[in-house]
Amino acid sequence: MKILIVGGVAGGASAAARLRRLSEKDEIIMFEKGEYISFANCGLPYYVGEVIQSRNKLLVQTVEGMGTRFNLDIRNWTEIVGIDREAKTVTARKVATGEEYTESYDKLILSPGASPIKPRIEGIEEANNVYTLRNIPDTDRIKEKVDLEKPEKAVVIGGGFIGLEIAENLRERGVDVTIVDMSSQVMAPIDFEMAQIVHTHLREKGVQLLLEENVSAILDGGKKVRLDSGIELESDMILLAIGVMPESTIAKEAGLEVGVKGAIKVNEHLQTSDPSIYAVGDVIEVKDYIHGTDTYIPLAWPANRQGRLVADHIHGKEAVYHGTLGTSIAKVFDLSVASTGSNEKLLKRLGVPYEVVHVTPNSHAGYYPGAAQLNLKLIFDKETGRIYGAQAVGKEGVDKRIDVIATAIKGNMTVLDLPDIEIAYAPPYSSAKDPVNMAGYAATNIMEGMAETVQWHEIDEIVANGGYLLDVRSPGEVAKGAIKGSVNIPIDELRGRLDEIPQDKDLYVTCQVGMRGYLAARILEGNGISVKNLDGGYHLYSIVYR
Amino acid sequence: MKILIVGGVAGGASAAARLRRLSEKDEIIMFEKGEYISFANCGLPYYVGEVIQSRNKLLVQTVEGMGTRFNLDIRNWTEIVGIDREAKTVTARKVATGEEYTESYDKLILSPGASPIKPRIEGIEEANNVYTLRNIPDTDRIKEKVDLEKPEKAVVIGGGFIGLEIAENLRERGVDVTIVDMSSQVMAPIDFEMAQIVHTHLREKGVQLLLEENVSAILDGGKKVRLDSGIELESDMILLAIGVMPESTIAKEAGLEVGVKGAIKVNEHLQTSDPSIYAVGDVIEVKDYIHGTDTYIPLAWPANRQGRLVADHIHGKEAVYHGTLGTSIAKVFDLSVASTGSNEKLLKRLGVPYEVVHVTPNSHAGYYPGAAQLNLKLIFDKETGRIYGAQAVGKEGVDKRIDVIATAIKGNMTVLDLPDIEIAYAPPYSSAKDPVNMAGYAATNIMEGMAETVQWHEIDEIVANGGYLLDVRSPGEVAKGAIKGSVNIPIDELRGRLDEIPQDKDLYVTCQVGMRGYLAARILEGNGISVKNLDGGYHLYSIVYR
Ligand SMILES: Cc1cc2nc3c(=O)[nH]c(=O)nc-3n(C[C@H](O)[C@H](O)[C@H](O)COP(=O)(O)OP(=O)(O)OC[C@H]3O[C@@H](n4cnc5c(N)ncnc54)[C@H](O)[C@@H]3O)c2cc1C
Ligand SMILES: Cc1cc2nc3c(=O)[nH]c(=O)nc-3n(C[C@H](O)[C@H](O)[C@H](O)COP(=O)(O)OP(=O)(O)OC[C@H]3O[C@@H](n4cnc5c(N)ncnc54)[C@H](O)[C@@H]3O)c2cc1C
Ligand SMILES: CC(C)(COP(=O)(O)OP(=O)(O)OC[C@H]1O[C@@H](n2cnc3c(N)ncnc32)[C@H](O)[C@@H]1OP(=O)(O)O)[C@@H](O)C(=O)NCCC(=O)NCCS
Ligand SMILES: CC(C)(COP(=O)(O)OP(=O)(O)OC[C@H]1O[C@@H](n2cnc3c(N)ncnc32)[C@H](O)[C@@H]1OP(=O)(O)O)[C@@H](O)C(=O)NCCC(=O)NCCS
Repeated sequence: MKILIVGGVAGGASAAARLRRLSEKDEIIMFEKGEYISFANCGLPYYVGEVIQSRNKLLVQTVEGMGTRFNLDIRNWTEIVGIDREAKTVTARKVATGEEYTESYDKLILSPGASPIKPRIEGIEEANNVYTLRNIPDTDRIKEKVDLEKPEKAVVIGGGFIGLEIAENLRERGVDVTIVDMSSQVMAPIDFEMAQIVHTHLREKGVQLLLEENVSAILDGGKKVRLDSGIELESDMILLAIGVMPESTIAKEAGLEVGVKGAIKVNEHLQTSDPSIYAVGDVIEVKDYIHGTDTYIPLAWPANRQGRLVADHIHGKEAVYHGTLGTSIAKVFDLSVASTGSNEKLLKRLGVPYEVVHVTPNSHAGYYPGAAQLNLKLIFDKETGRIYGAQAVGKEGVDKRIDVIATAIKGNMTVLDLPDIEIAYAPPYSSAKDPVNMAGYAATNIMEGMAETVQWHEIDEIVANGGYLLDVRSPGEVAKGAIKGSVNIPIDELRGRLDEIPQDKDLYVTCQVGMRGYLAARILEGNGISVKNLDGGYHLYSIVYR
Repeated sequence: MKILIVGGVAGGASAAARLRRLSEKDEIIMFEKGEYISFANCGLPYYVGEVIQSRNKLLVQTVEGMGTRFNLDIRNWTEIVGIDREAKTVTARKVATGEEYTESYDKLILSPGASPIKPRIEGIEEANNVYTLRNIPDTDRIKEKVDLEKPEKAVVIGGGFIGLEIAENLRERGVDVTIVDMSSQVMAPIDFEMAQIVHTHLREKGVQLLLEENVSAILDGGKKVRLDSGIELESDMILLAIGVMPESTIAKEAGLEVGVKGAIKVNEHLQTSDPSIYAVGDVIEVKDYIHGTDTYIPLAWPANRQGRLVADHIHGKEAVYHGTLGTSIAKVFDLSVASTGSNEKLLKRLGVPYEVVHVTPNSHAGYYPGAAQLNLKLIFDKETGRIYGAQAVGKEGVDKRIDVIATAIKGNMTVLDLPDIEIAYAPPYSSAKDPVNMAGYAATNIMEGMAETVQWHEIDEIVANGGYLLDVRSPGEVAKGAIKGSVNIPIDELRGRLDEIPQDKDLYVTCQVGMRGYLAARILEGNGISVKNLDGGYHLYSIVYR
């Protein structure tokens, strides 16, 4: 069998390696338009920041090394510019010479990835200091700029994970960084209140953050960036990181079906509308694992997984890709920010009803050094307990909890099963009730009618409309900040002061993170008084509104 | 309802807190024979080592604090010495005065825990420097000894997690430590080859490790410890950590059924043979989650979980304990050592056939600083893919992978599902194929007949009996150490040197960790030559035999 692969990095190289392990006989040719194959895309920002010090480390495999090991015909500096589906051939163009030739295939695998979106901003063409980051040459250019010209001010346009990673790494190099994002938050996969933790942290780290701001023009050849609001930012360099677009041009030209964002449509075996042509990675549309809807999620895990599955399917194995959950994580200075599944924004858009709990336990036993507060949010269906998604932000243990919940989702577990996950406990790692267990308990209580909650975005209006909000923290805690209009009765005095609770009002309760509020609600409930607890407590409220 | 609880720490305090959240009306009395309730058992060794510096941090709750918050009648310094099941009363004895009284119950919850085993060793009664570690007073005694007498040499008897934690913390205080264990390994939950990594590490950290050694006598009032082999060890202090026994005396006296190690038998609702009496925590026998057999697993997660379940069941909720998986972890100096489910030793004892894979990937992307080799072992059923257990040893990311696999087990996932677990990937946290995915791939290959393996303990005999072992590492690697009798053909030369492979021998292949060996096997297979790959490669082999 003769198999051609377009793109030699995550999806392409994974497919090639697995193909060879499945057969010594296949003829496998891998085309890569750039110089490098199999490089560490995800490491690029850290090389700019000199966190990764050796450029060589970014090259997971070389053309020669991988070619020999897997007996592959790897043709770098060679771009595929056309597909003839009738003839089952592709047209390859040598980048150096422009010379073109055709190559035939039995199976064709497309893994050309996605390219950074370059919007048509006034003045962008004239500027000589606008950068995007996708590959090694991009990285070299950015690093050279920083090394040689020692820029003082950079403007990063886009607060997605690549934008934030670039921002962090430029800060590492002493550059003053301003991030501009059109939306009200960075890190789209998490919801606003969780992103607020990230916003505060970015500012603490000296990053200027301009949200709900749009770049209207680039001035003076790139020396200035003007925003819609009129603000003008000085800029020695400008980094564009507003997202990526699938590189689907040749696929479209060949008449393959495309969908969301122009990404190639594939079936569950990752075959395009032409069954001899497979496509994987950042160039394809995928099914949302939770809802089955069409979506676009360009990440490395799916690209690697899909590359291997395609090799299997070509060799007659049962190989099904079940959709993408979108589990993702980014380091943002000292924070880890991660999520899996659906966020509130998506569920609202889809009109799916859901329930939310926020828990804020320690990453490990509080009495053992190094524990940090973990902000964990769980989104679920109140009727069935189905887990829709989870988000976590904190300094320790974030990745573990999101991976555990992602696993639970894949295992069809509900929030009722989360308390039963028997984790590995010793003080340096967790608590006897792990944060995931705790989120499960809190969610279970809601499902079983043991707890009713309101959210951070509801409470101000509730109080304004005459709701009675009881704050059960200690007076010392209240003195440091409390929700306007709340009345303080410390939890340990509550049983003795029940007569102070008004009988004619809608009652709400709050504390620092929601635990004592929940207990207070149970105490009141046990005395025939119905109340709702502010989920996440003053901690979450103050994160949003500080 | 009147509910009595015996024991005020993990299981007891958890039950009490949940009971109160379920009802404001119940009369709840919690008895604790010691001074302290709700303390951090698991933190005790670290207070000795001054890793935890404040003694107060060990006290999660105080008698007064918890009593007020949860409206509990907490009676510390009060031991329950008898149960009258007919009368539904217990006899309580005040420790200070010996005064006894009875208290009636509707429901009784037993969570008295387990006490350190004190074997009858010659001379142990005469020694004044023998310590066990279970509670705060024990800890105070040990710490005082170290603080005031600055012992130079300590002998720790028993290499379980408590023994190792004590050893580490005594080393932190500058004490020379010798660990003596009867078995051939420390950390019984993991298998021998994994324990060898721990053994080497302990020795690197200056701990003297004497395995397969039994203490025959304690001499000179504790100044010397004599072993069966005749070795005599000097000892300024002796720590006994050879395991625990359920504190089931009063239960037995009351005629409650007991099982393994004398632990109390309970049904799936944690009721003893008397349905008005529940028991939880270290005092009970549990079902092995994997096999359903009776076993004894004294750990904090189960105790906490069971405490809460009992409260639920008392209040008429559907509350079922599904058995204990035995997920556990310990920090051993710079290593984390964790496991979940069954190990090989248990499966052999039960006569259950199983298959094993060892993978040794980086804890996170190798090009990002701080990555460490993770030794991950997966045990499964070759026919069904059922996961029996997993073990991990390494410096980073151990807890996460074991928690993910524990979750997969609870979600009834098989090894075929592990490659599909969509983890959160960015370079500081994982690789695009996570170690768990990788273990799943390796296991899947075995199930699908893509790979056949032999284990570290088989290869020497195989070679001795004329098996041909091909080592496909580079000559440089081979020069640093190789398996006796192996023949070196580097992987990248293999395709060109197939004629060197003998046709008349049983063929085996090895490399450093098993990956190149697997690839070599695929290459040979593709050329019609059948070989088996040494699972875990020379890395694992040398860990065991160095
Ligand atoms: C800076 C950065 C950081 C990232 N960090 C993370 C992270 O932390 N976690 C994560 O999950 N994901 C991360 N990603 C995303 C991840 O790298 C991609 O999802 C993944 O690489 C996609 O794999 P792919 O094979 O589809 O495309 P790529 O890996 O991009 O490979 C496509 C290759 O195809 C080549 N090509 C394109 N068209 C042609 C053609 N016509 N002919 C020949 N060759 C062609 C391209 O030159 C390219 O080398 C990051 C990406 C970037 C850029
Ligand atoms: C040093 C040490 C380190 C540990 N580290 C870990 C770890 O890292 N991870 C882990 O999972 N587990 C660990 N454990 C085990 C964990 O602490 C136990 O599994 C857990 O505490 C068991 O809970 P329990 O409620 O059954 O018993 P306990 O927590 O021991 O509580 C029982 C209480 O009952 C009291 N009591 C007993 N009999 C009576 C009576 N007749 N009347 C009144 N009171 C009575 C006892 O005084 C005791 O305070 C550790 C244990 C120790 C000792
Ligand atoms: C590295 C790359 C070339 C893929 O190569 P690969 O050989 O498929 O992947 P790995 O090196 O991880 O090896 C995985 C194989 O080794 C096997 N393996 C791993 N450990 C093993 C062990 N101890 N014993 C036996 N087999 C083992 C796995 O089963 C798998 O083989 P399979 O797919 O046939 O089941 C490709 O992923 C790549 O180019 N990556 C860099 C780019 C990238 O991913 N970018 C995005 C992230 S930065
Ligand atoms: C601490 C101890 C007294 C148990 O108290 P507890 O109140 O049950 O446990 P926690 O403090 O963890 O609180 C858990 C409760 O808070 C709820 N909760 C947690 N975070 C919440 C939040 N953000 N919002 C609402 N509720 C929340 C949980 O749902 C749970 O309530 P539930 O059981 O009614 O569902 C007991 O575990 C103990 O004594 N521990 C120390 C001893 C020990 O465990 N030793 C072994 C390990 S060292």
